[in-house]
Amino acid sequence: MKAEIIAIGSELLGPKKMDTNSLYLTEKLNRLGIQVVRKTVVGDDPRRLEDAFLSAISRSDLVISTGGLGPTRDDITRDVLAKALGLSMHLNNGILDRLKQRYRARGTKFQENSTRQAYVIENTEPIPNGPGAAPGTYLEKDGTVIVLLPGVPREMRYMMEHFVLERLRKQWSLSVPVSIMLNFAGIPESMIDQRLRKFDFSGRGMEFAILASLRRVQVILTGQDRDELKGMAALVKGEFPEAFYSEGDRFLEELILEQLKAAGKTLSVAESCTGGFLGKTLTDMPGSSAVFLGGFIVYQNKAKTRFLGVPEDVLADFGAVSSPVAERMATGVREAFGSDFGIGITGVAGPDASEEKPAGLVYISVNAGGQKEVREFHFAGTRDMVRVQSVTAALNRLRLLISRPKEGK
Amino acid sequence: MKAEIIAIGSELLGPKKMDTNSLYLTEKLNRLGIQVVRKTVVGDDPRRLEDAFLSAISRSDLVISTGGLGPTRDDITRDVLAKALGLSMHLNNGILDRLKQRYRARGTKFQENSTRQAYVIENTEPIPNGPGAAPGTYLEKDGTVIVLLPGVPREMRYMMEHFVLERLRKQWSLSVPVSIMLNFAGIPESMIDQRLRKFDFSGRGMEFAILASLRRVQVILTGQDRDELKGMAALVKGEFPEAFYSEGDRFLEELILEQLKAAGKTLSVAESCTGGFLGKTLTDMPGSSAVFLGGFIVYQNKAKTRFLGVPEDVLADFGAVSSPVAERMATGVREAFGSDFGIGITGVAGPDASEEKPAGLVYISVNAGGQKEVREFHFAGTRDMVRVQSVTAALNRLRLLISRPKEGK
Repeated sequence: MKAEIIAIGSELLGPKKMDTNSLYLTEKLNRLGIQVVRKTVVGDDPRRLEDAFLSAISRSDLVISTGGLGPTRDDITRDVLAKALGLSMHLNNGILDRLKQRYRARGTKFQENSTRQAYVIENTEPIPNGPGAAPGTYLEKDGTVIVLLPGVPREMRYMMEHFVLERLRKQWSLSVPVSIMLNFAGIPESMIDQRLRKFDFSGRGMEFAILASLRRVQVILTGQDRDELKGMAALVKGEFPEAFYSEGDRFLEELILEQLKAAGKTLSVAESCTGGFLGKTLTDMPGSSAVFLGGFIVYQNKAKTRFLGVPEDVLADFGAVSSPVAERMATGVREAFGSDFGIGITGVAGPDASEEKPAGLVYISVNAGGQKEVREFHFAGTRDMVRVQSVTAALNRLRLLISRPKEGK
Repeated sequence: MKAEIIAIGSELLGPKKMDTNSLYLTEKLNRLGIQVVRKTVVGDDPRRLEDAFLSAISRSDLVISTGGLGPTRDDITRDVLAKALGLSMHLNNGILDRLKQRYRARGTKFQENSTRQAYVIENTEPIPNGPGAAPGTYLEKDGTVIVLLPGVPREMRYMMEHFVLERLRKQWSLSVPVSIMLNFAGIPESMIDQRLRKFDFSGRGMEFAILASLRRVQVILTGQDRDELKGMAALVKGEFPEAFYSEGDRFLEELILEQLKAAGKTLSVAESCTGGFLGKTLTDMPGSSAVFLGGFIVYQNKAKTRFLGVPEDVLADFGAVSSPVAERMATGVREAFGSDFGIGITGVAGPDASEEKPAGLVYISVNAGGQKEVREFHFAGTRDMVRVQSVTAALNRLRLLISRPKEGK
């Protein structure tokens, strides 16, 4: 089933405001297996609106419009559609009574122009508007379903959830698919994509999508049968046992704070090129103070020596951006704060090289006392991208160290 | 002049991502007096895209598309438009050479499919792509101008600002209004709006707009005469001599880093509720290491005492979120780093109250040795909003301290 969405309102064609209702509508329609193939924004212009309706109706199984159902002269959606389809409109006294009641209950005078909202197109169903005044419209024309919804998000959602979705499901006997989201870190999207090609997702009636950002890679499996999906999800996780970190819509910092809280462990950080970004990311989460003790932002060598005990000769011999410096930073901050885990990050965020080292070169060390590691990374992209990837990699290395079984114990 | 915008890409028809390029395009076109009358989003489907192009071209003076110019099989914009208009395409060797050079410079292999980006439609002008690879296209057909831009915002903006706007202006002899942007901090949008009502902007042929975020308030004056605008800008600044901080599109951190650099002064920060967010904001700027020495993230009382010398009895008597603690934090970090300026932030980011103090209560202290201050703030909103406002307020108080003439000198 193919759908189009038409957002109506001149304010949506300016430089400030945009139609966001269509994201909500798309999500709900996709879950029913209905694909959105086109979105249009038009102003309160009868000729342009009629053209948008007629061409959408000629192309698609479902046309949903938002906006233009209210009482003012700009609200022309119902009239334009009726005229375009050659249908008449009549006053619905039940709706008019409810409107008048509503105005009375709110203590506002019933304006004559509000009567407009009580006109319905012949042979259509009005859609009740729970939180608002103007009803919506549901009609069929030559095999295409046309739904007129208000532009106010609350009212639009109410009509979708209390009327439209159920009607569509029944009318087209649609089944509702299930999704499982799997989150991965420390692995490129392309490698996941490649390694998963051997699985015959579509042959098993599943859809497979990858959503990647600099903070995580998500694999989303969608299908009809939850058990089959779970089986497939287990196979996908099994391909990348180290990189998989969580199901659902979760970021690394959420998982880590939970893990530390559960284990009663604490964390401190020493940041050079990220300049506080890792601390900021951890403290974005409410309740982080239970496990995150704090950190040092050591943007200059002197501070690295003074607060973290990085020896001057190590800085001189290897440079501030080096593996031994990252290691001493992690050790130093862990000792200074008396935390269970310490992280040290030093690198060149760019855009320019530094100390003859290229932008994007970053060393990250994680220290848990008995266990520690340092890793070298080469991140691509702008200063901001290098910094985001550094924070993500630090969180990911910490996750692996937390979940790794301790040697000799 | 009427324009339509077509955003191309199946990812823009899903429930997560939406076309935001059109807001930028609308703003730029509106400034030239061109009105956007319709926006369409279509996927990478040749038939639907052709239909969208042809109907838009038949209706409007200008059609701008974004997306689908890259090297992959999904990138069909140029081919579809050429076919729809009955135009042929040919390989442009100049573009091909530049593409190959670009790949070489980045050390990546030139893939055969990248050749696609070097094909141009006959009798059209390629639009140079500064930051990216694929060129854009500018053509005229039966009186309608058609512009194909990439979907990557940076590349799309580059082409608009370096090619398209100027071409449209010349082609249609449009007059380009001039704008002056004035940035303010530490003052609510509503107060600016109210105090500026006495000026008769429209009577002088000017437009006046306020753009507010948690990071700054911008007053934008637009008109035809630069000198008149400058005169009005001086009046507006004069109303708020303390809150005004800069002309142009600038944030506080840019100004502060410049001021410190020019004065040869250094800065360090001690952050509690912002957890590194202030350091992150300062180090977002390249070159910040010249003046930003670093800081402490002191999320717990012990760390405040140990690293910043906040006395235990002050913490016990006043609580961690208090004016004397903020003051000691600023003093302590300035001394520890030996910097000229020190900032201390302590507060309740929320969402919950802490130590019986309400979410949003934040104390900020700035210390320059001889001069120092502490301020109490009550910020509204979510955890994230409280933290952004704390960072902004800290930067603004620092700005005022830097620019204040020293007493007794």
